[in-house]
Amino acid sequence: MQILDLIGVFAFGVSGALMAIRRDFDVVGIAILAVVTALGGGLVRDLVLGDTPPPAFTEWPYLVVALIAAALTALTPRGFTRLTRPLLVFDAAGLGLFSVAGTEKALDFGLAPVAAACLGVTTAVGGGVLRDVIAREVPALVRPDSELYAVPALAGALLVGTASTAGVEGPLLGAGVAVAVFTVRVLALRRHWRGPRARHA
Amino acid sequence: MQILDLIGVFAFGVSGALMAIRRDFDVVGIAILAVVTALGGGLVRDLVLGDTPPPAFTEWPYLVVALIAAALTALTPRGFTRLTRPLLVFDAAGLGLFSVAGTEKALDFGLAPVAAACLGVTTAVGGGVLRDVIAREVPALVRPDSELYAVPALAGALLVGTASTAGVEGPLLGAGVAVAVFTVRVLALRRHWRGPRARHA
Amino acid sequence: MQILDLIGVFAFGVSGALMAIRRDFDVVGIAILAVVTALGGGLVRDLVLGDTPPPAFTEWPYLVVALIAAALTALTPRGFTRLTRPLLVFDAAGLGLFSVAGTEKALDFGLAPVAAACLGVTTAVGGGVLRDVIAREVPALVRPDSELYAVPALAGALLVGTASTAGVEGPLLGAGVAVAVFTVRVLALRRHWRGPRARHA
Repeated sequence: MQILDLIGVFAFGVSGALMAIRRDFDVVGIAILAVVTALGGGLVRDLVLGDTPPPAFTEWPYLVVALIAAALTALTPRGFTRLTRPLLVFDAAGLGLFSVAGTEKALDFGLAPVAAACLGVTTAVGGGVLRDVIAREVPALVRPDSELYAVPALAGALLVGTASTAGVEGPLLGAGVAVAVFTVRVLALRRHWRGPRARHA
Repeated sequence: MQILDLIGVFAFGVSGALMAIRRDFDVVGIAILAVVTALGGGLVRDLVLGDTPPPAFTEWPYLVVALIAAALTALTPRGFTRLTRPLLVFDAAGLGLFSVAGTEKALDFGLAPVAAACLGVTTAVGGGVLRDVIAREVPALVRPDSELYAVPALAGALLVGTASTAGVEGPLLGAGVAVAVFTVRVLALRRHWRGPRARHA
Repeated sequence: MQILDLIGVFAFGVSGALMAIRRDFDVVGIAILAVVTALGGGLVRDLVLGDTPPPAFTEWPYLVVALIAAALTALTPRGFTRLTRPLLVFDAAGLGLFSVAGTEKALDFGLAPVAAACLGVTTAVGGGVLRDVIAREVPALVRPDSELYAVPALAGALLVGTASTAGVEGPLLGAGVAVAVFTVRVLALRRHWRGPRARHA
């Protein structure tokens, strides 16, 4: 299932690079923000699980995939990289992939299903929060006008956790849930689905 | 002493939810900011102690208490939640409780008294710093016009650490110190006690 | 080699205190920002390595040196502390020292040379990122108009990692590389060396 993790790294790497380009960072800043976004969520997950030193540092594909994502993005025509939509779409892809991959790794480390789902959501939103904090944006996670972000990730993570309790696991399930989370997030963006406000706000 | 920890989780959860409401977050954002504020400081403490996976993920009361704090806050009449004072008061309560609970857990893990006190302060201020960074406020910890914040927490933590060296421990001492830290912080807010500036500033 | 680490703590402590003074923090805020800047990068490194509790909490020289840096800075005449250049110079010194000290500690913990170099860079830039995020500055690490920052740190860290593979180690090499990283960073600042933009930006 490491494949899901690496595709998530690529997707978040692109989203970090797009944010860096929009903020006029130079190529070094683009590479750094791509790497932080791509590896940040997994790093927090691994520290929480006590899996040290984390694979992000000890297995080269993680860093290399993040840097490839940065390079490809930096070489893409300017018009595309200035758009907000690609950033949101790649971010949604990373969200779906990491909510599944994070939950599965937490289950492998013996966490209970709900705890594993919470850690999966942390993995999924962690890199994006770091990206937005460093670029001084309000994190998409809590942005007042943001369409549903953490909700599909949590639903997907809970599904993976519950299925594992029922003995259902495997790459197909993981890939399916990741696609479903991605689809719901993109639909939420297109149709402006939002969470309700507190009742008086 | 887990009780102190959970009351601290509740107090910081309310402060996080109040900040989210003031920033017009939707209910999902409110829940997330409450959880991050409530569990963030303890999470950093547990990672530093190597207590992985941290209880915030493996013991359900932590997450549940944080979510209850968010729900109660979101259901509170609007006028109250818009005020700055409740946020500061709940933050002060969390500060007092976590400075004691954090120090005691660090002592349990074998840290020396001063080191344990430093980690207690980190626990006490960590969640609030995360809250303020995500909500893009200058952290209360370092705000130029902020009344004494870390000082009472450090004094309380050092008191708990020193008492433990002298063989004095127990729930009554902990509760008393937590109340004292809370009281000093609230008095500092009311009477505008501030730290001195650097001499030439 | 702990000496390099402590000199780096001092340099970053001064840079954190200078930022706090520029932002009109009171003496408590100055002490806190100095400590966070001085110990933050090493703390992240130690959590990644699983070296818990980290020396920043268990060995008193770290905290004491950071506080001395804060005190000396706060007692320095105002004109000096308001300048931007001293902050950048002390930051550059910390960058050079921590890129070497971080890489060497990671090698001691058995990381491969490139992984150790990446962790060395994380150590070197971590404290400064925390400083800038808390003070609500765009981190120097990714600032659009920032002169080369991470590049000399990475070059120095890779040099230390490579030399160690070749069996070359020792205090003289470390000190030399730290000075070289510092020199390149200061030259980059003076001569406005910048990374290229993405080709269309």
